[in-house]
Amino acid sequence: MNEFDRHDTVRAVAFADGVLRLLDQRRLPFAETTVECRSADEVAAAIRDLVVRGAPAIGIAAAWGVVLAAQQLAAAGQAITPQALEPALAQLNAARPTAVNLAWALARMRSVLARTSGGDVPAALAREARSIQDEDLAANRRMGELGAGLIKPGSSVLTHCNTGSLATAGFGTALGVIRAGAAAGKIAQVYAGETRPWLQGARLTIWELLRDAIPAKLIADSAASHLMQSGAVQWVIVGADRIAANGDTANKIGTYQLAISARHHGVKFMVVAPASTVDMATPDGAHIHIELREPGELFGIGGQRTVAAGADAWNPVFDVTPAQLIDALVTERGVIERPDAAKLREAFG
Amino acid sequence: MNEFDRHDTVRAVAFADGVLRLLDQRRLPFAETTVECRSADEVAAAIRDLVVRGAPAIGIAAAWGVVLAAQQLAAAGQAITPQALEPALAQLNAARPTAVNLAWALARMRSVLARTSGGDVPAALAREARSIQDEDLAANRRMGELGAGLIKPGSSVLTHCNTGSLATAGFGTALGVIRAGAAAGKIAQVYAGETRPWLQGARLTIWELLRDAIPAKLIADSAASHLMQSGAVQWVIVGADRIAANGDTANKIGTYQLAISARHHGVKFMVVAPASTVDMATPDGAHIHIELREPGELFGIGGQRTVAAGADAWNPVFDVTPAQLIDALVTERGVIERPDAAKLREAFG
Repeated sequence: MNEFDRHDTVRAVAFADGVLRLLDQRRLPFAETTVECRSADEVAAAIRDLVVRGAPAIGIAAAWGVVLAAQQLAAAGQAITPQALEPALAQLNAARPTAVNLAWALARMRSVLARTSGGDVPAALAREARSIQDEDLAANRRMGELGAGLIKPGSSVLTHCNTGSLATAGFGTALGVIRAGAAAGKIAQVYAGETRPWLQGARLTIWELLRDAIPAKLIADSAASHLMQSGAVQWVIVGADRIAANGDTANKIGTYQLAISARHHGVKFMVVAPASTVDMATPDGAHIHIELREPGELFGIGGQRTVAAGADAWNPVFDVTPAQLIDALVTERGVIERPDAAKLREAFG
Repeated sequence: MNEFDRHDTVRAVAFADGVLRLLDQRRLPFAETTVECRSADEVAAAIRDLVVRGAPAIGIAAAWGVVLAAQQLAAAGQAITPQALEPALAQLNAARPTAVNLAWALARMRSVLARTSGGDVPAALAREARSIQDEDLAANRRMGELGAGLIKPGSSVLTHCNTGSLATAGFGTALGVIRAGAAAGKIAQVYAGETRPWLQGARLTIWELLRDAIPAKLIADSAASHLMQSGAVQWVIVGADRIAANGDTANKIGTYQLAISARHHGVKFMVVAPASTVDMATPDGAHIHIELREPGELFGIGGQRTVAAGADAWNPVFDVTPAQLIDALVTERGVIERPDAAKLREAFG
């Protein structure tokens, strides 16, 4: 049994002995290999290239990236100052634009730097990164309980992308709610959308659910409305990459479509994310920067090209679901039903 | 230049010298190979296995399948009677359940059989199959004009699956409207959804649009709502596999989702299909049989497996869009705006 092989959870991000090991999610579910990072540079590249993905997991990886940068300065005999670490912080922050957890985790690391000095800095940075990781796991367990509390026994649910152990410090956000619901005997069936183009649902969520023996069926992303029309699901449960001050929520491309369809069919829509995902500095969804990735990501799967040469594509990898389409926002601080600016100000202001 | 290599069109189904040649659409866009059929058995297998797909094209292929069955009887010195052809007719009819064009084309062939006898039968069957094919092409050209008449200059449109030359006798239904609109200088940009699991949009529609030099961008199926939210498209234009008497329309899985989203965003929704797709014997969408295909179709692309062993999937390959979500139904007989039972009875009753 290696360190990633645990009951009900896997570890996407693991720091030990001065090395950050990231489970290479590009190769799952068929190869469980790790990418070793020894510098912030390598961590930023791993985030950009989707070795590690999922908003909370990239925040955690970035925090450890700062620890690695500090280690490198120390090894070179240089002082670990905010100025000296600034290039690493900036590089990590720029690795991906939409998820706020990255900036949030780096802000915590900056804050440690601002209040620590001299020989205490490396240990203080490592403690902070560890805290970010441990708090995320605890938040997920709490959100699992809270979210599962909203689900009636015998329910079937639809989820999108991967929001499980692989996307977080463990257990998961939306998938954590599904895990907790399944443990409470409330979940009859989970449906998971494939989540093109990276197939996080097909490759990662199905893999996690199989490991936990939770009944799961994969669907094409575009089968979701037909599924809802059939009456087969009572909840759509998704994660988030950034939640604006009015509750508008950026998440994986396709989430918005599910929310429109859920409302059309009277299916409930739940967003599950740690409080660190709430960005009170962004007033609404129109101000969230949506990452556009390479057209080439739509031209095939793995090594298999499927589209003729000369093709073009439009490849936004997130979209924004307006708060009005969200029935419940679950963070570790509690459940907000029908989130809006006033309710978020009260909870997070 | 082979017989499939024409300007603005390709030939999915070609009968000559007693052999039916089907362009193998499973291998497009990278290999242009044909599957040769010499029996109804082989045609039924080609339809089931998606060598040929698209509602009008499978109707045409099935009609030629009856010609092949008659040829075989003649070669064996047997009489070509309705009774002798019944097994072939039944087998072809059962090849795929949702598209009505298959049953419609076979009904036409049965009708020829009922009114012809003796030595005239083989030639009469071949003439009927040729008519079905030629009429389809003419209908598509007419629908192209009618549909393009609804589009304002400078419009951008979204389509789904493949409804072009590959799905028909040539030119296409929804893609025919897009071709005619582009020829009239009205189309600024076409967006095509990938259309999981068979990727007809990515593999076939993009290929056809590239050949015609019509500006096209591929999108993930689940990016459609984000696209509509951005204001980038004015029309969603799709084909149909069966249109019930009240206007409810079965089409490729994902169409229903586009219709819900189009209405949500005030984007217009057009269905384009020959009159043979209208099934007045089916009162509404609830009575349309939706084909469920193998879960394995969602487990990978080409030879590339993407989903862990032991996974399950739900794989409906069509869905039903209620008539209320359709702004315009275009057949070769004319345009029906906001189709309903009364308007269809008047046009097709």
